Amino acid sequence: MATIKDIAAYCNVAVSTVSRALNDHPDVSAETRRKVLDAVHSLHYVPNNAARDLVLPQSDSIGLVVRGAENPFFTPIIRAVEKACEDLGYTMVLHQIPAGGDEVGEGARLVQSKRLRGLIMLGGRYDYTSDDVSAIGVPFVCCTYTNHFGDLDAGSFSSVSIDDKAEAYRAVKQLIDNGHTKIAILLDSKTDRSISERRFCGYCEALADAGISLDEGLACETVEFNMGAAFACVERFIAERPDITAIFSVADTMAIAAMKAIANAGRTIPDDISIISIDGIEMSLYTVPTLTTLVQPKALIGEKAVEILVDVLDNGGKTRHVRLETTLRPGGTVGRVHSVDLA
Amino acid sequence: MATIKDIAAYCNVAVSTVSRALNDHPDVSAETRRKVLDAVHSLHYVPNNAARDLVLPQSDSIGLVVRGAENPFFTPIIRAVEKACEDLGYTMVLHQIPAGGDEVGEGARLVQSKRLRGLIMLGGRYDYTSDDVSAIGVPFVCCTYTNHFGDLDAGSFSSVSIDDKAEAYRAVKQLIDNGHTKIAILLDSKTDRSISERRFCGYCEALADAGISLDEGLACETVEFNMGAAFACVERFIAERPDITAIFSVADTMAIAAMKAIANAGRTIPDDISIISIDGIEMSLYTVPTLTTLVQPKALIGEKAVEILVDVLDNGGKTRHVRLETTLRPGGTVGRVHSVDLA
Repeated sequence: MATIKDIAAYCNVAVSTVSRALNDHPDVSAETRRKVLDAVHSLHYVPNNAARDLVLPQSDSIGLVVRGAENPFFTPIIRAVEKACEDLGYTMVLHQIPAGGDEVGEGARLVQSKRLRGLIMLGGRYDYTSDDVSAIGVPFVCCTYTNHFGDLDAGSFSSVSIDDKAEAYRAVKQLIDNGHTKIAILLDSKTDRSISERRFCGYCEALADAGISLDEGLACETVEFNMGAAFACVERFIAERPDITAIFSVADTMAIAAMKAIANAGRTIPDDISIISIDGIEMSLYTVPTLTTLVQPKALIGEKAVEILVDVLDNGGKTRHVRLETTLRPGGTVGRVHSVDLA
Repeated sequence: MATIKDIAAYCNVAVSTVSRALNDHPDVSAETRRKVLDAVHSLHYVPNNAARDLVLPQSDSIGLVVRGAENPFFTPIIRAVEKACEDLGYTMVLHQIPAGGDEVGEGARLVQSKRLRGLIMLGGRYDYTSDDVSAIGVPFVCCTYTNHFGDLDAGSFSSVSIDDKAEAYRAVKQLIDNGHTKIAILLDSKTDRSISERRFCGYCEALADAGISLDEGLACETVEFNMGAAFACVERFIAERPDITAIFSVADTMAIAAMKAIANAGRTIPDDISIISIDGIEMSLYTVPTLTTLVQPKALIGEKAVEILVDVLDNGGKTRHVRLETTLRPGGTVGRVHSVDLA
């Protein structure tokens, strides 16, 4: 059977060029791509591991697609997934994609090329349709999210996550209980059909229950889900809205970037602006002051995802939807609103 | 061929118990372990993936053992290794172990159980002997470190790293150039036969070249390489040695923990204490002030490690030792020493 090296030699290009051509990378010329595809055809090359897997009935591998590879929140979950796979006799195949990436498409490709028995997606959209996921073709678990905005039959997949809306409600309630009414929300988008939209719902409900009317201008939308975008966005936002006294951030990473922007603006946490978030990454223990946050049970989330998937694979177990709870870590970033602000 | 499930059923225990028994976990009773081993023998079970690999001439897998799974410095390197493996037609098999773990022993086990073609160890000891690494049995790359204190023949392995001593020298020189003479070093141990010991050499040499005599009491040794240990150690240290005006930390994570301890003690950075480090993790852009650090070329380190390994595997290429350079990111944590301190 031809290997990728045979294709490269045949075309007189590097192996990496063949790989890029086969993966539709934009930096391969149309001519080279055609040459490579012709060679693939002539030499009967089957890309990647599929060749070897043709002779194999099944692998012992579970895929883990991580959407947002640089997010430190995922690190302990990846660790837990790997350990649980190993303990149960499986090999974890890791694939990391950008925060806005197509986890379903990449997951389906991974299932095929690595002949996976099951798939865990760590981070993803909440609005899959049955059509979207049909290409996956093996049991899968949505890890840290679920299908709130989609139409998947609950029996057709599993999920492990916190209750985004309830936890966001709880975070915002902490701010309200400390006298805050001008509360901003830091999120990628109010309508991302994902984590931010669900947590925005919790924010709105907490305000409504406290009789605080919603001000749409208090949503600080970063568009991209990363620290750089959060920093730039908060820097601009606090100049435009000097009246806010508190921020609820949907993630610790974004909260830490916001704290930097607030400090750069010469304002003090929590005296001028309070901040609370959700996640509990290790780094948030070392901000000054310590970030007040709702800590997710990260290792448990990873373990549960594997446990459910392996039960489905090995024992014909049922798909399941597990909601776990956070733990409030008080920290030092939430203070009572100053009486002068109430005037 | 018997599977791990057959063993579990035969012994009437959980699959995870069988796994733990086979991996010598301490929480399995001697009786259970014996029962499992008897079953393994009776049923001719070959642990893990080895069974399936007996029918395979070779896998397409490269192992990545990460020593210090929670270290955010490694995150972009893991990402780069995975991408480079994929681009070159390989599958990366990730295995994460604690910061003080046995990367060689775990790597050798991984090579066997997953039938790996090559191994990259991300983080490790600098003092391997030929005996130590003989069990690995496939080409390997030391990633972010090398064999300075060991006796490996340079042709028998590859490495990709910065020059620890030279970069530590450069960091400490920044402090000296700003008038500091009472400079502490934050590290796990002066004699760890690894990264800290090499960087301690660079620290000593920079002081010597500037005519500053070495004060062994200025080494703040954390014993463990993590943020919690660094925080506790610096908290105690600055109370004992109020005369220091600067700290060189061997890692960004430990520097960030130190900054928290300094703030808790009511001291200001950089007015009271300057700090500089090595790594350039994303989070260090968001400390207040921004951490001054020597940024390692993280993605390049991962790419180079895979490039060398695949060249050895596919083309019979030579082993290589690549030293890469850091880039100083000025930040805001290094200031000139106050004249009152010089009095």
